[in-house]
Amino acid sequence: MKFSKRILDMQFSPIRKLAPYAEIAKEKGVEVYHLNIGQPDIVTPDCFFNAVKEYEERVLKYSGSQGIDKLIESFIKYYKGWGIDFEKKEILITNGGSEAIMFTLMAICDAGDEVIIPEPFYTNYSGFSDVAGVKVVSFMTKAENGFHLPSKDEIVSKITNKTRGIIVSNPGNPTGVVYTYEEIRMLADIAKEYNIYIIADEVYREFVYDGLKYTSALTMTDVLDRVILIDSISKRYSACGARIGLVASKNKDLINQILKLCQSRLCVPTLEQIAAANLINTPESYFYGVKAEYENRRNILYNALYKIPGIICDKPTGAFYIVAKLPVKDAEDFAKWMLTDFSYNNKTVMFAPAEGFYATPGLGKDEVRFSYCINSDELEDAIDIFERGLIQYLNMQ
Amino acid sequence: MKFSKRILDMQFSPIRKLAPYAEIAKEKGVEVYHLNIGQPDIVTPDCFFNAVKEYEERVLKYSGSQGIDKLIESFIKYYKGWGIDFEKKEILITNGGSEAIMFTLMAICDAGDEVIIPEPFYTNYSGFSDVAGVKVVSFMTKAENGFHLPSKDEIVSKITNKTRGIIVSNPGNPTGVVYTYEEIRMLADIAKEYNIYIIADEVYREFVYDGLKYTSALTMTDVLDRVILIDSISKRYSACGARIGLVASKNKDLINQILKLCQSRLCVPTLEQIAAANLINTPESYFYGVKAEYENRRNILYNALYKIPGIICDKPTGAFYIVAKLPVKDAEDFAKWMLTDFSYNNKTVMFAPAEGFYATPGLGKDEVRFSYCINSDELEDAIDIFERGLIQYLNMQ
Ligand SMILES: Cc1ncc(COP(=O)(O)O)c(C=O)c1O
Ligand SMILES: Cc1ncc(COP(=O)(O)O)c(C=O)c1O
Repeated sequence: MKFSKRILDMQFSPIRKLAPYAEIAKEKGVEVYHLNIGQPDIVTPDCFFNAVKEYEERVLKYSGSQGIDKLIESFIKYYKGWGIDFEKKEILITNGGSEAIMFTLMAICDAGDEVIIPEPFYTNYSGFSDVAGVKVVSFMTKAENGFHLPSKDEIVSKITNKTRGIIVSNPGNPTGVVYTYEEIRMLADIAKEYNIYIIADEVYREFVYDGLKYTSALTMTDVLDRVILIDSISKRYSACGARIGLVASKNKDLINQILKLCQSRLCVPTLEQIAAANLINTPESYFYGVKAEYENRRNILYNALYKIPGIICDKPTGAFYIVAKLPVKDAEDFAKWMLTDFSYNNKTVMFAPAEGFYATPGLGKDEVRFSYCINSDELEDAIDIFERGLIQYLNMQ
Repeated sequence: MKFSKRILDMQFSPIRKLAPYAEIAKEKGVEVYHLNIGQPDIVTPDCFFNAVKEYEERVLKYSGSQGIDKLIESFIKYYKGWGIDFEKKEILITNGGSEAIMFTLMAICDAGDEVIIPEPFYTNYSGFSDVAGVKVVSFMTKAENGFHLPSKDEIVSKITNKTRGIIVSNPGNPTGVVYTYEEIRMLADIAKEYNIYIIADEVYREFVYDGLKYTSALTMTDVLDRVILIDSISKRYSACGARIGLVASKNKDLINQILKLCQSRLCVPTLEQIAAANLINTPESYFYGVKAEYENRRNILYNALYKIPGIICDKPTGAFYIVAKLPVKDAEDFAKWMLTDFSYNNKTVMFAPAEGFYATPGLGKDEVRFSYCINSDELEDAIDIFERGLIQYLNMQ
């Protein structure tokens, strides 16, 4: 039986595809430090679970396709805290930021249309684009330059009459970049001049270090008809398993069109929405604590990594990832080997080969992405083990 | 700013699009009987909520993209009860049956490909097809004939070299049809001869009345490489808001391809999966009770409806819907009017105009779908009010 070309073109998740090798390691009794996945170890705020426990309905019903009022209102309140005004009709609750991205692409692009994405990028952008029949056109950003945007000329040279939008993750996954005001302003100018959307994936908004100021695309008030916000509680509240996200835009007509997609899949889980609505009661101190924790881990990981001979990386200022160039030919082979053939003190380290974060064939083959979602003691141990593994691997070549 | 053609082509949910008018009625203090939506009033089994309350993890993590083992195993056990054998690698948990349908279309069809669907059909089949760029080719089934399938010749006359599959809801939404063994056998023969998939949407499997025997497409053992099962706990356990469904097939390669789509959206809500896994402990008596209840409601609704002058409908044998032809020109106009201009004893009735369940323009304009998801006393009251409304509406014309 035949499969579609679009599904054959899709890649398996580069973050998840090594999972079977991790299973092998675990079956052998080897402990695996997971630096491969953006799954925080941080405790989810109690107010989430409290709402779950207090749920009293006896029939678990569909909710409205746009999401429950209480949850939408809680987001409106949250954005107010960031100086951003939203109304109810401008927000749709989605199954994680993931579905928000998918729906956005479906609503603005037909098959054959193009979106521009700085490379390396969150790998599922290209997965969703494949599904939607949308062509990803990338431009390079480089570790040497902290993965900041290139010149306006370089970006606009990628625009064709098929370009519908530009997707940016800010702070960036996998790069950890936090764009400056000037960079966001430049994107706004491009969106205006070339009549394209900005798909602003801001799921890591809270995770900005070194006292940097965060600039949301939503502060570019002259282009709000073309800014589409992707957001999620997954990282903000360490509630990845809740699958609550949203798509929002001041362009109400667009949101109304996307509502059709929401209606087709009926609704987002009712109970999770009710619990997520309660997250607005998370104390401010939670965020300070979490941010300080990640900043400290970033320091630990970066300070250890950049000293390892042959490794090239820049100090990221946001999210919880570092992309590093390794002195190996094939980072995926090395990552597998670490799981199947190496351990130290019965422990090993898993990380994501970076090739899957690039659209341009050949790029990223010697790069990997580390996440720092484990506590600092474990992180220190993990880097030590990683370095030992790397040395042994290099000696074998 | 431009929207995609595919989103503009999509229709708003015909089931949900009258919701704003229902709000107007409610704001005026008019009680609305909802015969428009397949949202059961039946209580969700306690074992679901018990599992929710017992959840002790403090970090709500992503689960595996394929779904949690315990839930998959519970489904394997459930299918065994129906004489159907599945293995772990043949099942993927999805966000409701809805996502299962979407992923299936994406995996077997490219843009421009075709699927065949008996008309009238579950309206979201065409919504998902629009999103996927897939053309819906329909053939008619008729109330006079209890919405059973036409001859093999009539069905195969719709097959072209672009046809990838045939989608059937069995029992049928909106028709309530339950296909005979011979009908399912005919579909299997067609799938074999023409090398197409059968997408078997069996979410109403439990709801079969009058002692009829149910035939799952999965009992056609000679074509299991091309049967794709869509399933869901929404209706079976009255757990619509949980959003737990699945796609399953003995064609492991297909399931492995669909896994890429699962990976791209990361996972299905963790807590809901854990709770859903507990539903396997629902006592058999639950199903007997629920089925008897629906069968009684079906009798009440049908017996009242077919006696109303000018109404044409056949007694359905499954699911919880009845399609009826009304003596009105524009059923949508009538449905709106019932919400905005009519009430009796401060109550009115909402139902779904059937036009949206047809692909062929013009069909279904004088038809509506009723669901019987309210208790029998309310149902009797609702039909009485409906009849009064219809008479008044006709008198005004
Ligand atoms: C940049 C970015 N956007 C979106 C998502 C989607 O997250 P979720 O679907 O859990 O909200 C992720 C998850 O890792 C991400 O890194
Ligand atoms: C025939 C049919 N298939 C699939 C679904 C999808 O249900 P869910 O996404 O809640 O599992 C429905 C819902 O009404 C349906 O009627």
